[in-house]
Amino acid sequence: MSIASDLAAIEPRVAALVCNIASPALRDETHGELAQSCIRLLNAFSRQAVDSSAGGKRLRSLLALAAFDALATGDQLDSRSAMLDVACAIEVFQTAALVHDDIIDDSDLRRGNPSAHTALGHAAHSAAIGKGLGLMLGDLLATGSVTVVNDAAHDLPQMRGLLDAFLRMQHEVGIGQVLDLAVERTPLDDPVLLANSSLTVFRWKTASYTTIAPLELGMVAAGMTCAEARRHALEIGSPLGIAFQLADDLLDAEGPSAATGKPIGGDIREGKRTVLLADALSAASPAERRTLTTMYQAASRDGDDVDQAIDIFARTGSFDKSRERINQLLTTCLDMIAALPISVRGRDVLTEACKRFAPESSI
Amino acid sequence: MSIASDLAAIEPRVAALVCNIASPALRDETHGELAQSCIRLLNAFSRQAVDSSAGGKRLRSLLALAAFDALATGDQLDSRSAMLDVACAIEVFQTAALVHDDIIDDSDLRRGNPSAHTALGHAAHSAAIGKGLGLMLGDLLATGSVTVVNDAAHDLPQMRGLLDAFLRMQHEVGIGQVLDLAVERTPLDDPVLLANSSLTVFRWKTASYTTIAPLELGMVAAGMTCAEARRHALEIGSPLGIAFQLADDLLDAEGPSAATGKPIGGDIREGKRTVLLADALSAASPAERRTLTTMYQAASRDGDDVDQAIDIFARTGSFDKSRERINQLLTTCLDMIAALPISVRGRDVLTEACKRFAPESSI
Repeated sequence: MSIASDLAAIEPRVAALVCNIASPALRDETHGELAQSCIRLLNAFSRQAVDSSAGGKRLRSLLALAAFDALATGDQLDSRSAMLDVACAIEVFQTAALVHDDIIDDSDLRRGNPSAHTALGHAAHSAAIGKGLGLMLGDLLATGSVTVVNDAAHDLPQMRGLLDAFLRMQHEVGIGQVLDLAVERTPLDDPVLLANSSLTVFRWKTASYTTIAPLELGMVAAGMTCAEARRHALEIGSPLGIAFQLADDLLDAEGPSAATGKPIGGDIREGKRTVLLADALSAASPAERRTLTTMYQAASRDGDDVDQAIDIFARTGSFDKSRERINQLLTTCLDMIAALPISVRGRDVLTEACKRFAPESSI
Repeated sequence: MSIASDLAAIEPRVAALVCNIASPALRDETHGELAQSCIRLLNAFSRQAVDSSAGGKRLRSLLALAAFDALATGDQLDSRSAMLDVACAIEVFQTAALVHDDIIDDSDLRRGNPSAHTALGHAAHSAAIGKGLGLMLGDLLATGSVTVVNDAAHDLPQMRGLLDAFLRMQHEVGIGQVLDLAVERTPLDDPVLLANSSLTVFRWKTASYTTIAPLELGMVAAGMTCAEARRHALEIGSPLGIAFQLADDLLDAEGPSAATGKPIGGDIREGKRTVLLADALSAASPAERRTLTTMYQAASRDGDDVDQAIDIFARTGSFDKSRERINQLLTTCLDMIAALPISVRGRDVLTEACKRFAPESSI
């Protein structure tokens, strides 16, 4: 299958799935009477589910399909439409995670548009109700994504393995988000510990559902044993997912902001503990280190602070260090693919899908 | 089994399950290095999961076990420990729902103690991080509860039916919460529509996981076909769950507040659209109606407003009307149990478990 045809299948399927999940089906119940104002808000809620799910690059679902295609042969290819739903379920879950993420970060914008809770607040003429509806949208989509996998898995081998992997993915992302919040309290006087903490967060918060689970789900659906799929998915997906998050953090600090729909240096403004910050602190002069420490310990940071931090990141070689980290991680990822006991064509399919996560890399 | 022995089994099992779900198991990963301050916060997070899950009356898990006991015979009784986990999963999910509910309602208290996000805010020395951690605790427990059912269902008949029912329950609660928020926009000039809207919310927000799903899960685990179990669970559980929520709303307005751990008249203070309000508006004099309408359309309500609203609820017979509704609903519930094609002992077991949801009723 080509990327274009996969994307053409993924987009409408994700929209249909999230719309179905977020639409109350009250018709079969006797107590179905609701005021028009209420029904209008419910319709806005369903539309928001679709809006929130749109606009992604679909790298995760494409990777899941590529992992399936890399291994599947003969009759297995008949179950590719069920595999498409499993792949789309990852996108549905990502939508849930982003909607909750924007509530946690108090973000008004997502991909240049109002975030879900902000848009729903406008629809309800109440920021409080908008936040509540956004929270529930995330809850519904998270549960709904499991239902999608549960339904699709019946047409695939190792039904239990697929569901186990998908549930573990959700668990890992949750733990990763907790780590991400907890790491905010990490002191700045040990940059090596700070860098390692951030990399741990990346493994759980990002690699879990961005690369590890897509690989694992595709491989299990194509018939690989669950234990083997898990091992290969970790070997390939951990470095790839961490590299992807490093590249995302680079983009946040180096721009252009049009690519993210958010103002440049958002992580710095929020005072986030990142690998960029850790590497800058490691290589900084005493004066630069004092500047950064004071800045990150303050209650907030303004545009001048952001400019100054980016300047120090550049001077200390922190950006270059992240690019170096990314290249090393990608090399490991590609080595692991090369060692996979599958066909040459399968390895090529996987390599292509993985490289899509780091288009700027020279690897 | 006696209630006492069931409760003695439920309490520690729920605590063990939530602690396991909320504890990051980073040991098997290479990137496990974290600062001590971070580890302290993670430990506080796990402890909070246990604290948040404690203190309930366990009516839901007891009902699920009663439904199982009412039908199970012979060898089926061997799988009662797996059924215990399914029953506890409902409690784990309820914990998730309450944690998110307190974020939506901005409640500092739950059962007289700090709510999860408030307690976590203290532990993190940041209300924003506390809210983020609370949100993630709810997410983790919701997903974790599905994992508990998925694991337990392998030792029970109709594994797929159990998981389907549990996922549908989570979906219905989510939709119910959305309805609950959307109904806040219902105008006050049509009290009958307002009452019906509130009853619809009760069916989805409360009956779904309080009575319908426990009955359904217990019956399916005991071998009843999924379609039959669903039908009986709706017939018995819908009226029972709606009666339970009506009684809860009565308690909120009539007290004593020690029973809820929240100040009396909390729903009135929040301006919530309740059946009590709808029934009061239906029977009110023009002057009383104007008073209530003005009060509920205001941005906020103080203690004097609460007293005045309770006074009007009492004068218009709104409290008595709710008690009448409760008795009618319980009568329907018990009639449905009496018509069940099961043993007399089974009907007695179910009747006893259902009556526990309305201890104040005269039925």
